[in-house]
Amino acid sequence: MKINKREIVYLDNSATTFVRPEVIKEIIKYSCHIYGNPSSIHNIGRQAKIALENFRVKISKLLNSNSEEIFFAGSGTEADNIAILGISSAYKSNNKHIITSKIEHPAVLNSCKYLEKIGYTVTYLNVNKYGIVSSEDLVKNIKDNTILVTIMHTNNEVGSIQPISEISTKLKKINKNRKIKIYFHTDAIQSAGKLKLDVKKLGIDILTISAHKFHGPKGVSAIYVKKGTSISPILYGGSQENKIHPGTENLAYIAGLSKAFKYSNNNLEKYHDYLFYLKNKLKYGILNSIPDVNINTPDTNSINNILNVSFKYLEGESLLLMLDMNDIAVSTGSACASGLNSTSHVLSAMGINPILSRGSIRFSFDYYNTESEIDYVLKILPGLVKNLRLMYPNKS
Amino acid sequence: MKINKREIVYLDNSATTFVRPEVIKEIIKYSCHIYGNPSSIHNIGRQAKIALENFRVKISKLLNSNSEEIFFAGSGTEADNIAILGISSAYKSNNKHIITSKIEHPAVLNSCKYLEKIGYTVTYLNVNKYGIVSSEDLVKNIKDNTILVTIMHTNNEVGSIQPISEISTKLKKINKNRKIKIYFHTDAIQSAGKLKLDVKKLGIDILTISAHKFHGPKGVSAIYVKKGTSISPILYGGSQENKIHPGTENLAYIAGLSKAFKYSNNNLEKYHDYLFYLKNKLKYGILNSIPDVNINTPDTNSINNILNVSFKYLEGESLLLMLDMNDIAVSTGSACASGLNSTSHVLSAMGINPILSRGSIRFSFDYYNTESEIDYVLKILPGLVKNLRLMYPNKS
Repeated sequence: MKINKREIVYLDNSATTFVRPEVIKEIIKYSCHIYGNPSSIHNIGRQAKIALENFRVKISKLLNSNSEEIFFAGSGTEADNIAILGISSAYKSNNKHIITSKIEHPAVLNSCKYLEKIGYTVTYLNVNKYGIVSSEDLVKNIKDNTILVTIMHTNNEVGSIQPISEISTKLKKINKNRKIKIYFHTDAIQSAGKLKLDVKKLGIDILTISAHKFHGPKGVSAIYVKKGTSISPILYGGSQENKIHPGTENLAYIAGLSKAFKYSNNNLEKYHDYLFYLKNKLKYGILNSIPDVNINTPDTNSINNILNVSFKYLEGESLLLMLDMNDIAVSTGSACASGLNSTSHVLSAMGINPILSRGSIRFSFDYYNTESEIDYVLKILPGLVKNLRLMYPNKS
Repeated sequence: MKINKREIVYLDNSATTFVRPEVIKEIIKYSCHIYGNPSSIHNIGRQAKIALENFRVKISKLLNSNSEEIFFAGSGTEADNIAILGISSAYKSNNKHIITSKIEHPAVLNSCKYLEKIGYTVTYLNVNKYGIVSSEDLVKNIKDNTILVTIMHTNNEVGSIQPISEISTKLKKINKNRKIKIYFHTDAIQSAGKLKLDVKKLGIDILTISAHKFHGPKGVSAIYVKKGTSISPILYGGSQENKIHPGTENLAYIAGLSKAFKYSNNNLEKYHDYLFYLKNKLKYGILNSIPDVNINTPDTNSINNILNVSFKYLEGESLLLMLDMNDIAVSTGSACASGLNSTSHVLSAMGINPILSRGSIRFSFDYYNTESEIDYVLKILPGLVKNLRLMYPNKS
């Protein structure tokens, strides 16, 4: 990948991705040619409206849902907020309970913290050492006033895949005997474009995806809302997107989302194996060449494009910067939580020793990455780790 | 303007505009090349962060503010919501009062209606027959618990320009003797790119603009928030945009907004006279060729790119569709309120007779429109009006 005339090895695809050329073409088409406001009644407005509804159909098919269950919004953060705050405020009383996990994205965690401030109670579930929520534990925490469970599909820092279908099966049984239904939301932002997402098989009520994680543009998301689920608006304005996302539709980016999602989904199997190969090449390459490391990404039930590794006796941020000087782009964890210089809330929830946790790096791949890029990382990395460890004050 | 190989006369520029070629170039650059997440620490993330801050500086200069007073968000609707709900919830108690006008955009009106639901009180000011709020009337409606005044800069349906500086001067005097400051927000979405916006001369605390009204992309806005003004977040997630708009920044669209805003501002004077000429050509052309019309856009204190006309004895929507069949795109009013088949709340507030109001058309120009397009409209329009009036049931 050429950036400003220099080649970089971009292994931060879980933070964001570049926009694919086919996607840019769609963005241009719906910015410069079919540019009408979908709410306008004239021809160019109607063309925009027809296109919008076609994209809704396309996305719905890829998720195995119906088009009237798909809504478009701004960022993934906004989509998660609409899901969590929208469901919560659809219940008139604030005296309600929500279950989430300790390893969610800040968009989910901070929405829940806001709800706590205004009178809701929230249970933050622990995860096991593999970064996975227990469905039994979740069921034990259900209260009479529980209205919402929000558990991510794939964790963004370590790549652990949560037992969403298992949880939904249990919730369905429980919901049969309850007055107040418990809704189930999953933030599938890290999974979309990498794993097949079938809302019926997952058994969820609301699912959120964001385009920029799969070579679509930043600032557009899709929300699946199962028919019959009431979501209150969190923004107020026109009637667009059934009022849950008022404002002139960003048709160009919706077109981009649709194109990028279709491309990724059409190539899931091909890339699945390829990414698995790259991940394992890097993983075993590291294990074979560098002592005192811990692989935080579980061997099973994890996504193929994330490898999170702790290097003992060094600061992750220092290693990130040294890698960056060698044209390798990685992160220490979530970009949305970066710059905080704190240890990862995800690794902490997994019970990882803080000394290890501070030396963590997330490598995240996509199908544009090559085997020779991994070879290059494996050539550079051991020396950098060795040098940084020389500076580490206390190794006991 | 060629759309799908047919020429159309696009006179609905207040609904939305196409994206300029120079703007598309910026969008491509920041989608495909400098595509990093501004929160990422590595080189490509830092490049994105530097670019983001540069765009903030550029926008701030164009508004005569400081860069730390500029925040980027999604749609204009979202920006208005952040301003109104953000200021309102920054005050802990709900027992507060807000002043707005009856002619605001649905993003403002419906935010205010939501606040009424949760315990705030709102005064909706009348306007005079020219669609203009009276600053004296506004002052009379201030209460001890008034915390916010939100008055649009230019009305989106008739183009009347509100006395923002006059209001802010009065508010400043009043604020000197009050415990609770009254903040002043203006929705300048229809003015941006057409009128010079100087936040110091306007004397406002918060100002919102949206890119797609001046040949930028749909789904990106800028919010000026005067230093010292506290705005509570309305979405929860990462720390982006000082937490008032969490989520990965849409750098490509922010670049587009910056480019489009700079271009429009650099050409304000040139286009001012040109649009004034087009508007008057159409206005007097209509008045000279069609009887029983009412020009709803005031002669003075109105923006040059909007001409709202009522044609007695016909339905505006029918005329819109007939014009559309002749490749002329117009609207009956706001796109955000279209399809509702009700009379315009703006014309109603101006005291326009409902029979006249139902036959209203908004023509909205930009500098891509030509004199020959106006000639074409003037050639087609009288015949269409005449034919539609033949079908009108009761002319008494």
